[in-house]
Amino acid sequence: VLIPFSAMPPAMRPLITLTTDFGMGSHYVAQMKGAILSLVREVDLVDISHEIGPQNVREGAVSLADATPRFPPGTIHVAVVDPGVGTARRLLYVEIGGQRYLAPDNGLLSYLLLTQQPQRIVALANRRFWLPEPAHTFHGRDILAPVAAHLALGVDPAELGPALATGDLVALDWPQPRCTHERIDGEVLYVDSFGNLIANIRRELVESLGNLSSLVVGCGNRQIQGIVATYGAALPGERVALFDSQGRLEVAVVDGSAARDLRLGAGAAVVVQSTVSR
Amino acid sequence: VLIPFSAMPPAMRPLITLTTDFGMGSHYVAQMKGAILSLVREVDLVDISHEIGPQNVREGAVSLADATPRFPPGTIHVAVVDPGVGTARRLLYVEIGGQRYLAPDNGLLSYLLLTQQPQRIVALANRRFWLPEPAHTFHGRDILAPVAAHLALGVDPAELGPALATGDLVALDWPQPRCTHERIDGEVLYVDSFGNLIANIRRELVESLGNLSSLVVGCGNRQIQGIVATYGAALPGERVALFDSQGRLEVAVVDGSAARDLRLGAGAAVVVQSTVSR
Amino acid sequence: VLIPFSAMPPAMRPLITLTTDFGMGSHYVAQMKGAILSLVREVDLVDISHEIGPQNVREGAVSLADATPRFPPGTIHVAVVDPGVGTARRLLYVEIGGQRYLAPDNGLLSYLLLTQQPQRIVALANRRFWLPEPAHTFHGRDILAPVAAHLALGVDPAELGPALATGDLVALDWPQPRCTHERIDGEVLYVDSFGNLIANIRRELVESLGNLSSLVVGCGNRQIQGIVATYGAALPGERVALFDSQGRLEVAVVDGSAARDLRLGAGAAVVVQSTVSR
Repeated sequence: VLIPFSAMPPAMRPLITLTTDFGMGSHYVAQMKGAILSLVREVDLVDISHEIGPQNVREGAVSLADATPRFPPGTIHVAVVDPGVGTARRLLYVEIGGQRYLAPDNGLLSYLLLTQQPQRIVALANRRFWLPEPAHTFHGRDILAPVAAHLALGVDPAELGPALATGDLVALDWPQPRCTHERIDGEVLYVDSFGNLIANIRRELVESLGNLSSLVVGCGNRQIQGIVATYGAALPGERVALFDSQGRLEVAVVDGSAARDLRLGAGAAVVVQSTVSR
Repeated sequence: VLIPFSAMPPAMRPLITLTTDFGMGSHYVAQMKGAILSLVREVDLVDISHEIGPQNVREGAVSLADATPRFPPGTIHVAVVDPGVGTARRLLYVEIGGQRYLAPDNGLLSYLLLTQQPQRIVALANRRFWLPEPAHTFHGRDILAPVAAHLALGVDPAELGPALATGDLVALDWPQPRCTHERIDGEVLYVDSFGNLIANIRRELVESLGNLSSLVVGCGNRQIQGIVATYGAALPGERVALFDSQGRLEVAVVDGSAARDLRLGAGAAVVVQSTVSR
Repeated sequence: VLIPFSAMPPAMRPLITLTTDFGMGSHYVAQMKGAILSLVREVDLVDISHEIGPQNVREGAVSLADATPRFPPGTIHVAVVDPGVGTARRLLYVEIGGQRYLAPDNGLLSYLLLTQQPQRIVALANRRFWLPEPAHTFHGRDILAPVAAHLALGVDPAELGPALATGDLVALDWPQPRCTHERIDGEVLYVDSFGNLIANIRRELVESLGNLSSLVVGCGNRQIQGIVATYGAALPGERVALFDSQGRLEVAVVDGSAARDLRLGAGAAVVVQSTVSR
C-alpha cells in the first residue's frame, strides 16, 4: 500500500529531476533550476536528459519510463517536451509507481502508463503555485518549476487543481509486437546514445520462442543468428542481438553504431524467428 | 535597499553556478568543481551552460543575463569565456541586481550592465584566495574557482582586491534597434538551442507599433505576417514570429529550426513594420 | 601517512563523481544516479565527463587522471568505459593518491597508476553490495553504482571482495617520449574539447632542452617557432605551442581548433627541437 504523498512529512532534502528537449547547450534548463531554487533552497536537482529530440514526445516518454523508476520513492520528476506550450493543452501532476511527475498532457507519461496504473492525477490549475504572468513559450520555467518547488516544500498535490481520471489523459499509440509460435514482429522503439536499436520486444516473449542461440533476429535487410549475453561475445564491428538493461531486445554493433551501420531508426521492423527466413 | 553581502551571514549551503565555453564533453568543468569542493564541501553547484560557443563572449553575456537573475539573491556565478586567459586582462568580482559574478573583464558582464547598475566591482588581486602558481591557460580553475569557494565560506569581497568603477570595465557594443513610427530595425541577438532567432527587439517596443496581428516581421528575405502568442498557433514547418520567454521578439519554425531554415545567425537584420514592405 | 578509509567516519555528505562514455544525451547516467540515490540520499553527485569517446578507454584514463586529483580526499569516483561489460573482466575498487575509484579492470586507471602507487586494490566480488540480478549490459548501474552507495554509507572496502596486487591489473601501454640533447619525440595524448592537441611531453622535459622561445615544435607537417605562455600571445587563427593546465605541451590554434586545422588526433607525432629541422 502506497502512503499518499500528502500524508508524508517532507524529506530533509527533496529530490527533483529534470527531463527536457532543450539541449545541453541551453541555459533554459538553468532558468528552470533557478526558478526552483529561488523558492526552495534545500533541494537536490538531478538531470535525466536534456537531449531528447526536439519535440520528440515518444523519445521523452521512453526515457522517463526507463530512468525515473530507478529513483527513490517520492522523487519529483519534471518533464518538458512540449510542442503545444502555450496552447490549451493541460499540465499534469501524476503519481505512478511511487514516483511523482509534472508534465504536459501530450502523451509524455503514456509509456509509463502502459504497464502501471496512476495513483493520482491532478490538472495544474491553481495559479497560486505558478510564477505570476507565465510566458506563453516557457511553462516549464514559469509553471512546472514553481509547482515542483511547492511540492518539495510539502504542498498537498490536491491543492494544485482538480483531480482527473486516467481516461482523461492524452494517450499515444504504442505498437505491441505481433506473435505466432515461430515469429515475433516488433519494431525499433528508440535509438540509444551508442546507436543501439532498442526494440519493443521483451525478453520473456523472445524466450518463449525457443533457445536463444537458435533464434534469428532480422532488422533492415540483415539477419543475426542467435542472441548473445554481452557485447563481448562478438568482435568489434560485428552485429549482435542481445537484451538491453531494461530486458528489451536490442540490435547493436560491437564498439560501433547499429543505427548508422544499418541506417535504421525508431519504427523500423525487427523480426525474431525460430528459423532463418528465406 | 540591498544589504551588502559582507554583512550577510553565509547561507547554510551557498549556491555557485558555472558558465563556460568548455563544452559538455570537457572535464575542465569538473576540474573547477573539484577545486571549489576541495575548499568548501557544503556548497551546491549548478551548471548554467558549458556550450557557449568557443571564445564567444557575446553569447556568454546574453546567456548570463537571461539565466542568472532567476537564481536566489547572493548566488555566486562563475563565468569563463576567456580568450585572453593569461594576458593582462583583469578578473572581476561584480555585484549586479543582488547576484554575485566572477568573470574576466572582457565584456562578459556587459549585457547585464546595459540595464542595471552594479552595486560593487572589485578587481581580483589578492593572491591569498587563489591556488598557488595558477596555470596561465586555466584561470577558471586556479583563480575564479577558489575565489568562489572563499566567497562561499564568507570572505568579504572587499578583501579580494581594489574596488573599481563601472567606467573602468571593458564594454562591448550592444546595438539597439532603430525605430520610427512605422518600422523597427533590429538584429538577431543570438540563436537558441532550438534554432530560434532571438532579436534585440523588446515586446513593449513592438506593441507600440500597432496591433500584433497586423505587423509584418522581416528576417532574411522572408516576411512573416503577424506575431502570434505560441508555437501552437501555426503548423509544423511554418515560420512564426512571437515573443520569447524574456520578452524579446523571436523568429521560429514550428517543430524546426529557423536558423537552419533561413540560414541566419547572430547579427542578421530583423525588421518589424506596420505594413508589408515592397 | 594516509588514514585507511575504513577508519574514517563517513562524511556528512559523501561525494561521488561519475565518468562515462554514455553521452550527455543518455539517460543511462541518470539511471546510475537513481541507483545511488535509492540507497543513499545524503550524497553529492558530480559529473566529470559523459562524453568520453565510446569504448575509448585511453581517453577515459587521461580524463580521470586530469580531473579526479582536484577533488577532496576520499571522493568516490565511478568510471564506466567498459567495452567488456558482462564478460569475465573484473570490476575494481582502487585507492590512489587519497581518491577512491570504482572501475572495470581494463586499463581505465592505468594512466593514474603510471605515476602513483595504489594504496589498496579490491576485486568487487561480494554480491551483497550489488543490485540483485545485474543486467549483463549495465554493470555501471547494477554493480558500480550500488557499491559506490555502500561505500558512501561507510562500508569497509575490505568487505567488497578479495585484495589484489598492482601486478594483477590490466595495464595499457602509455608511450613515453624519446629524448636526446636536442630533440624530444612524443605524440598526441588526446584532443581536448577546444581541439587542442595535448602531447605526452611534460614542461620539465621541454625546459631541459633550452630556452622556450628558441625551440621549434613540429606537429604533422607544420613547425611552430617558440613556446608561448598564453593563447593571447598570438593572433586569432595562428598556431601556437604552449603548456596546458596539467603542465603538458599543447599545440593550439588561437580561437580555433588545432585538431581540425592540422587534421591530427591521438597518436600523431609531436617533436620538439632546439633548431629548425630541414
